[in-house]
Amino acid sequence: MTIEASPRRATVSDRAGALYEIINSRRDTRREFTGAPLADDVLERILSAAHAAPSVGLTQPWDFVIIRSSQTLQRFRDHVTGEREVFARQLTGERAQTFARIKVEGICESGLGIVVGYDPTRGGSTILGRHAFDEAGLFSAVCAIQNLWLAAAAEGLGVGWVSFYREPFLRSLVDMPEHVRPIAWLCVGQIDGLPDAPDLERAGWRHRTPLASVLHLERYQPAADRQ
Amino acid sequence: MTIEASPRRATVSDRAGALYEIINSRRDTRREFTGAPLADDVLERILSAAHAAPSVGLTQPWDFVIIRSSQTLQRFRDHVTGEREVFARQLTGERAQTFARIKVEGICESGLGIVVGYDPTRGGSTILGRHAFDEAGLFSAVCAIQNLWLAAAAEGLGVGWVSFYREPFLRSLVDMPEHVRPIAWLCVGQIDGLPDAPDLERAGWRHRTPLASVLHLERYQPAADRQ
Repeated sequence: MTIEASPRRATVSDRAGALYEIINSRRDTRREFTGAPLADDVLERILSAAHAAPSVGLTQPWDFVIIRSSQTLQRFRDHVTGEREVFARQLTGERAQTFARIKVEGICESGLGIVVGYDPTRGGSTILGRHAFDEAGLFSAVCAIQNLWLAAAAEGLGVGWVSFYREPFLRSLVDMPEHVRPIAWLCVGQIDGLPDAPDLERAGWRHRTPLASVLHLERYQPAADRQ
Repeated sequence: MTIEASPRRATVSDRAGALYEIINSRRDTRREFTGAPLADDVLERILSAAHAAPSVGLTQPWDFVIIRSSQTLQRFRDHVTGEREVFARQLTGERAQTFARIKVEGICESGLGIVVGYDPTRGGSTILGRHAFDEAGLFSAVCAIQNLWLAAAAEGLGVGWVSFYREPFLRSLVDMPEHVRPIAWLCVGQIDGLPDAPDLERAGWRHRTPLASVLHLERYQPAADRQ
């Protein structure tokens, strides 16, 4: 079910083929950061890619806070270390042992964090496309993150999305006002290569499923009914 | 601030350049669908791109329901038409006149809809990366949508994300169980070209902002303080 294994691959245009290679090589990076500084022009390119994402009502409701201060990186890393312990205490047996081997962040090693904010007030009070589905604004900001992630992969950089944190802590750490939500901390930096498979798969935490397991025709059908 | 205008463009690798072209050419498509049928192999490639998205705890918490039934397309189109009117009634003056010129969906014209579901139960009860930030699962499904959107753009197809709908209606329409959220309807199909600028910009609804307006260094700074 992967693109690479398909005999149809020969019919894919160079343009699409380049994208599929980027999409399939992208990883959630924690261990591979070298700490080498990132050039400003590269940073601007990946942020421009994020800023070109689709957005509901053309609101572009995201903010990007670039963090290089080692003091701020360390403060966030310490917070995440505490949250890692909170999660670890929920686990027992094989799950606890497997999780103990998994690294969940490369905050200090990457040397650069990007805090992504979602500002629901951008664009005023009547947003085209949000009256019936308010989260469409939040989703726009996530599309920006995925654009940035793919751009970084194409530039040979690593990105690690850290979600082991509490919003109030991160909001306070970077002085975001109450109406802006810090929805992601992205570790971004130079790397010494990307593994072929996700960290969680290599550690035995969980394995990827075939595409067929999430496909439905015309109607949703529970997995048990589809076999 | 755009990539194309930058003198640094010459230093961008072919791989990254191809991605930036795809990212910048991608549009939210409503008017340009031709209705020509989509080949199964192309559909499988763009769905495989979605399925290769990052996901919290490697849960891959998305489902894709492929809709080709003209009856289902029409039923959803009628629902969206009603929601368009709900939004239109919130507007007055210039906003109402501008919105009247804007097409918000190409559901029947595209000939194919993909309903994206988010299943928070995928992966069990202790999801690595969701204990402190539960929406990280929802965000994974949105990353899958953005992968699909870029893949479609690379394949020369159009995608239109429709958000003028109520979740209970769409859940019922495609038989999703209560625990799965229908977070998007994507119109996908062949097109006769993509415009250079977003529909909403061309219609005068709203204009894109420069990257600098959403960038912050080390701390969030309100726009007024940054000028």
